[in-house]
Amino acid sequence: MGLKRKDLLSLTNLSADDITLILETADSFKEVSGREIKKVPALRGKTVVNLFFEPSTRTRTSFELAAKRLSADVINFSPSSSSVVKGETLLDTARNIEAMQADIIVLRHSSAGAAETLARGVKSSVINAGDGWHEHPTQALLDLYTIRSRQMGFAGLRVAIVGDVAHSRVARSNIFALTKLGAEVRVVGPPTMIPLQISQLGVQVYHNLDEALRGVNVIMMLRLQLERQGRALFPTIREYARHYGLTGERVKLAEPGAIVMHPGPINRGVEIAPDVADSLSSVILDQVANGVAVRMGILYLMSGAG
Amino acid sequence: MGLKRKDLLSLTNLSADDITLILETADSFKEVSGREIKKVPALRGKTVVNLFFEPSTRTRTSFELAAKRLSADVINFSPSSSSVVKGETLLDTARNIEAMQADIIVLRHSSAGAAETLARGVKSSVINAGDGWHEHPTQALLDLYTIRSRQMGFAGLRVAIVGDVAHSRVARSNIFALTKLGAEVRVVGPPTMIPLQISQLGVQVYHNLDEALRGVNVIMMLRLQLERQGRALFPTIREYARHYGLTGERVKLAEPGAIVMHPGPINRGVEIAPDVADSLSSVILDQVANGVAVRMGILYLMSGAG
Amino acid sequence: MGLKRKDLLSLTNLSADDITLILETADSFKEVSGREIKKVPALRGKTVVNLFFEPSTRTRTSFELAAKRLSADVINFSPSSSSVVKGETLLDTARNIEAMQADIIVLRHSSAGAAETLARGVKSSVINAGDGWHEHPTQALLDLYTIRSRQMGFAGLRVAIVGDVAHSRVARSNIFALTKLGAEVRVVGPPTMIPLQISQLGVQVYHNLDEALRGVNVIMMLRLQLERQGRALFPTIREYARHYGLTGERVKLAEPGAIVMHPGPINRGVEIAPDVADSLSSVILDQVANGVAVRMGILYLMSGAG
Repeated sequence: MGLKRKDLLSLTNLSADDITLILETADSFKEVSGREIKKVPALRGKTVVNLFFEPSTRTRTSFELAAKRLSADVINFSPSSSSVVKGETLLDTARNIEAMQADIIVLRHSSAGAAETLARGVKSSVINAGDGWHEHPTQALLDLYTIRSRQMGFAGLRVAIVGDVAHSRVARSNIFALTKLGAEVRVVGPPTMIPLQISQLGVQVYHNLDEALRGVNVIMMLRLQLERQGRALFPTIREYARHYGLTGERVKLAEPGAIVMHPGPINRGVEIAPDVADSLSSVILDQVANGVAVRMGILYLMSGAG
Repeated sequence: MGLKRKDLLSLTNLSADDITLILETADSFKEVSGREIKKVPALRGKTVVNLFFEPSTRTRTSFELAAKRLSADVINFSPSSSSVVKGETLLDTARNIEAMQADIIVLRHSSAGAAETLARGVKSSVINAGDGWHEHPTQALLDLYTIRSRQMGFAGLRVAIVGDVAHSRVARSNIFALTKLGAEVRVVGPPTMIPLQISQLGVQVYHNLDEALRGVNVIMMLRLQLERQGRALFPTIREYARHYGLTGERVKLAEPGAIVMHPGPINRGVEIAPDVADSLSSVILDQVANGVAVRMGILYLMSGAG
Repeated sequence: MGLKRKDLLSLTNLSADDITLILETADSFKEVSGREIKKVPALRGKTVVNLFFEPSTRTRTSFELAAKRLSADVINFSPSSSSVVKGETLLDTARNIEAMQADIIVLRHSSAGAAETLARGVKSSVINAGDGWHEHPTQALLDLYTIRSRQMGFAGLRVAIVGDVAHSRVARSNIFALTKLGAEVRVVGPPTMIPLQISQLGVQVYHNLDEALRGVNVIMMLRLQLERQGRALFPTIREYARHYGLTGERVKLAEPGAIVMHPGPINRGVEIAPDVADSLSSVILDQVANGVAVRMGILYLMSGAG
């Protein structure tokens, strides 16, 4: 029983069985999250530290709520304004947190590989909450949980991932997990946003959204990171929205019953039309709700309580 | 029993009975706040989210303490540095928080009407912790509680509200509540700080502080928002202090036993003389203490536990 | 029994017995901090407010963890972005916190004497978590605890404090405590970093590190505050590192079994060589771990629970 691993860094080295264990563990916590008293004592006396080098209110809050509903003590540690200014290395910061007997460190960092470096350097469990453009495994796991909760099987499932795949850790983690579970994954975007060797990951590349959506069961939109778009970029936001924005018309090209996903925050009218975001096909808020349950499951399994 | 309403947005639509219920509920929590073990399990397993778009350490702390003393889980969510930058709408942010099963959202926002917009958009209870120049209902309720705790009845009570009434949500909420409860309200300030149609709210307008203070039971000072004063404004801070600053001499014009209130933070020597702020007439720190109890009462009633 | 004092402001007015009581109280909490369930109910229903006017993720986190492991409710109150901007005085801010029934206020402030001012103005207990260049008593206490846990007695112990002694509250608090307990204290640094009258505190002054290290049992490095070094300062960082950086060679000049301490965060390659920081002589991470236990002990004693 149990994950039998200290850390959750990536979805490349989780087996299909590991993934299934996490999703099934999340089931019981999904119930807790919906109860009148949303609390269980599973992690009482354990310390969870949210070590966020990049601001992320939403992911941090999801982990904070998950830990509190498990009765853990939670510390938010945002070194941007403190130790980093003072010149301390990531590993020294983490060893300090470890020395304070943190059981689990949840790390968000702008550098790919930061979580792995950390995990090798400390005895505390490390959960990767996003490292640069590399991976965001808990986001992918909550996406999988959301798909599964719609009674969809993964084998043969057709999924289109739409947008700036090149700069998306969400896309990468989902590609690793979905292909492992037997889904057929299509990535769609302008050539500047699709990495050259991506087909080596076992996905099909499209540049035309209409073609890519035909017959898919899941449409997974990526956020256009407006704050990252420079002045001279092709395409412009307007062009992007016209070619790659998800409209109601386009949703009809997919399989009947197809669901629309987005990791949030959404740019209404850019990558997704407002009526699509608010439609019955949209499971965007289910993703948020499931995020807490999946993270409860992960914290529970990582804490050794499983 | 109970407030029978999902949200607390404004004092215009609370009945006198509603107000009395809140004040009486606060009484029992006032006791809790003064005990050795300042904690009751009334909101165990409930989630309270402080969603503060404007910084306000003091109000946020008061709500945070109130929620913790009721054993709720509290999340501080300050989107300034995160989702807002990323272009998310207020409603999308709130729906995310709702999806994480927040029972109560405490909202501070710079736009009048933000709390009402939010309340219509989410199933979570919404408490308005200040929306632009519009209302700040929990501040008015703690002011009422403080007046009442001095054994003063509201019917026929004479209250002078002094300062920048035009830009004060505290003044507006107090005017609504005090007139509803039968008090006689006077507003005092330079013409630039008194809205033209304010008399329609059933208050008397004064521009001379000495005249306004004659015979009042309660002197409610407003904070001069120094950070909002532009360069060419009349009056200057020095002139303002001379004409509208509360001195010991001026307090003597009021009814014997009159109390001096201020929502804080105070500008000593500007709107209030230091010796007045620290005098026996001053109930400024009582207001702070009562704020926690009143907010405990409100959270308790909103949570459905009442 | 008990400390019989309201506040912990400085180590100058603690007796040797007081210090011993704190260290012995910390012993039992050191155990708690290492257990599976790192929590005791000693401060349930008590409120601890971290009032930090200077950013300090590490000290704030240590206090926050200590308070949470004692089951207190903890509020982080960082007035920089709020009340201070609004012109409130330190004492008014603190009286507000006191009015909210804070049992203990942990204060970090840039002005020497701030903690003492506060303690005189409020009934809540005040713990000085660093006031300007004046004192940092809990850091010194955790340093003492760490020395003692290495089975070293204080009488006759030889300690070298190395670096910018003039601007170090850590140095000052340690000098007060160590001399009181009978240790022989040497301070070492370039003349610009050693205050002229320091020998009046009963310490020996050295400017040559090699000489100072001969025969010492404890090497206490201070952090070079890179962010405080102006452009024209003597010495440059490179010169500083050459003359006052602790290398493996230099450690050999000390007594066999000597320990190396540092309050963190460390500047690897500046005041301490990486291999020394990570060596068996280094107790830097023990200091961090002990910090939580010592602060649990202090909070426990200050709360009156002792």
